Amino acid sequence: MQTERRPPRGSDDPAAETLGTTGEFALISAITADLEPELAAAVGGRVLLGPGDDGAVLLADGPVVSSIDCLVEGVHFRTDWSEALDVGRKAVAVNLADLEAMGAAPVGVLVGFTAPAELPTRWALDFAAGVRQECRTAGAALLGGDTTRGPVIMIAVTALGTLPGEAITRDNARPGDVVAVCGRLGWAAAGLAVLGRGFRSPRAVVEAQRVPAVPYGQGRAAAAAGAHAMIDISDGLLADLGHVARASKVIIDLDPAAFAVPDPLRAVAAATGSDPLTLILTGGEDHALAAAFSAEDVPEGWTVVGRVLRPDAAEGRVTVDGREWEGARGWDHFRR
Amino acid sequence: MQTERRPPRGSDDPAAETLGTTGEFALISAITADLEPELAAAVGGRVLLGPGDDGAVLLADGPVVSSIDCLVEGVHFRTDWSEALDVGRKAVAVNLADLEAMGAAPVGVLVGFTAPAELPTRWALDFAAGVRQECRTAGAALLGGDTTRGPVIMIAVTALGTLPGEAITRDNARPGDVVAVCGRLGWAAAGLAVLGRGFRSPRAVVEAQRVPAVPYGQGRAAAAAGAHAMIDISDGLLADLGHVARASKVIIDLDPAAFAVPDPLRAVAAATGSDPLTLILTGGEDHALAAAFSAEDVPEGWTVVGRVLRPDAAEGRVTVDGREWEGARGWDHFRR
Repeated sequence: MQTERRPPRGSDDPAAETLGTTGEFALISAITADLEPELAAAVGGRVLLGPGDDGAVLLADGPVVSSIDCLVEGVHFRTDWSEALDVGRKAVAVNLADLEAMGAAPVGVLVGFTAPAELPTRWALDFAAGVRQECRTAGAALLGGDTTRGPVIMIAVTALGTLPGEAITRDNARPGDVVAVCGRLGWAAAGLAVLGRGFRSPRAVVEAQRVPAVPYGQGRAAAAAGAHAMIDISDGLLADLGHVARASKVIIDLDPAAFAVPDPLRAVAAATGSDPLTLILTGGEDHALAAAFSAEDVPEGWTVVGRVLRPDAAEGRVTVDGREWEGARGWDHFRR
Repeated sequence: MQTERRPPRGSDDPAAETLGTTGEFALISAITADLEPELAAAVGGRVLLGPGDDGAVLLADGPVVSSIDCLVEGVHFRTDWSEALDVGRKAVAVNLADLEAMGAAPVGVLVGFTAPAELPTRWALDFAAGVRQECRTAGAALLGGDTTRGPVIMIAVTALGTLPGEAITRDNARPGDVVAVCGRLGWAAAGLAVLGRGFRSPRAVVEAQRVPAVPYGQGRAAAAAGAHAMIDISDGLLADLGHVARASKVIIDLDPAAFAVPDPLRAVAAATGSDPLTLILTGGEDHALAAAFSAEDVPEGWTVVGRVLRPDAAEGRVTVDGREWEGARGWDHFRR
């Protein structure tokens, strides 16, 4: 998100509890209350021990996949654009998408939560409720965490999952494969475009910016169908398929006609004088999945959008209709 | 650490590379170069896949223990007091101490790294070198990470390990047990006291503040010896044994005469007009281990410092020579 932090965060009620008055240990107790049913329901592994000790303990029924992602206030979310519940859901969703992209079943998350002492306690509790809600949606559980003080809200989530089969990596896309996607492309970027102009509609893209609709289960379905390579689209389709192309040392060509343009994207593109295909090819934060398959293996729910053409002795690259894409390709967190 | 952030961080050389000029992907390449030997050497599990994909993959030889900790610039470290290498080592050490406290063998860490775009790239590379150095010391490896932009340096580390036997939790200290500690107590707090007064000596306590000397292997030794309950001392012995006392619903009594007072602590206490026992009982950040054992089971290298007296129908508590401890007990991250 290419925006600066906005200071106003908090409550209009000066008597409201803050993290400074609630304290670390009471906060943790409130966040982890009544977790047992969720821990018991977590799929893919058995949670032997949840929050409250030095570490969580899982008995996994296969190899364990882990991934970490950080979300920073003013960089990945703004408290005046997103409710705390949405930030909690998003923090979990972006991470569980990484597990899906490996073909893994999520078991749970560890959450590091850093915030100023003057943050209303309500915000932290709503954030935690969002974490637990998204976990439940995905069949995972809150396994543990750490809370500490810092100048802005910073969230680090580690997702843990188990692999029913082989890990689907980025480096095995094969010439002759088709490339297919599952999930939304360009919606979150469209939402960011309208929020950045001070609008709150189309509502669907604004909501997509706040919480990505991760296609839970589809990464596992792709792995079971025999996907050769897979990735989570976090920085934009061209940028992330670029990782697959380089790791696999192949040329991937996308067919621009293969992408349906949903109405909300068409509306945003018209209103902002932009091209919907640019949103689709370069917009990040939707956390769709992209994978390379043998043509006959593409599972239901996936859309073929391109092909793996041939090995590339150089470094691997992605083209659109046979040509280099002009313009922005994706997002580098330190460059602007 | 009860200090405010100091802005000066960075290089005197205006031409030095920064994260903004280096970029996210070149930074990650530099951090993860030549990792294979470390991944191959990681103990306790087999690393099937390290950094560079959507997730890392472990094949564990037992239950998997996980823990997350956050370190924030100006709260947990200061760049004018600690070198980047030390911050990297500390970020890993505090987390691996949690695994030791469960009786687990470390396998590896995931690191979330947030920093301003103007941070010298050198700082990030030295930090990463510290992460890898401490991992090697402990027999672990860097498994993956995430880098992103933020207003200050914020680090989140997740440690993953495997359990050779039962997890040693906090809730099983038994009346009649002895309580023993392994590792340093009060050293980091003494270091903070002298650094806060503008001094750099005694050097031993200043170094202890920068990087804790975690007693690697001793948590596993305690577990193998039959420890009933164990905890990592991060917030202070009284505070952390308080967690054990409450979880186990017992009264733990410490013997003040059982604590040897090391020379550097005596020197700091004399120079600052404080009591060395206060440093030992309430100083945090040394990441020693404390455990409850049957008296005959205490392993070599551990010092008996107290006893589990009896069940406490109320909520469990810690006393010193039979009395309530007067004064500060430990550290709450949001209260000051």
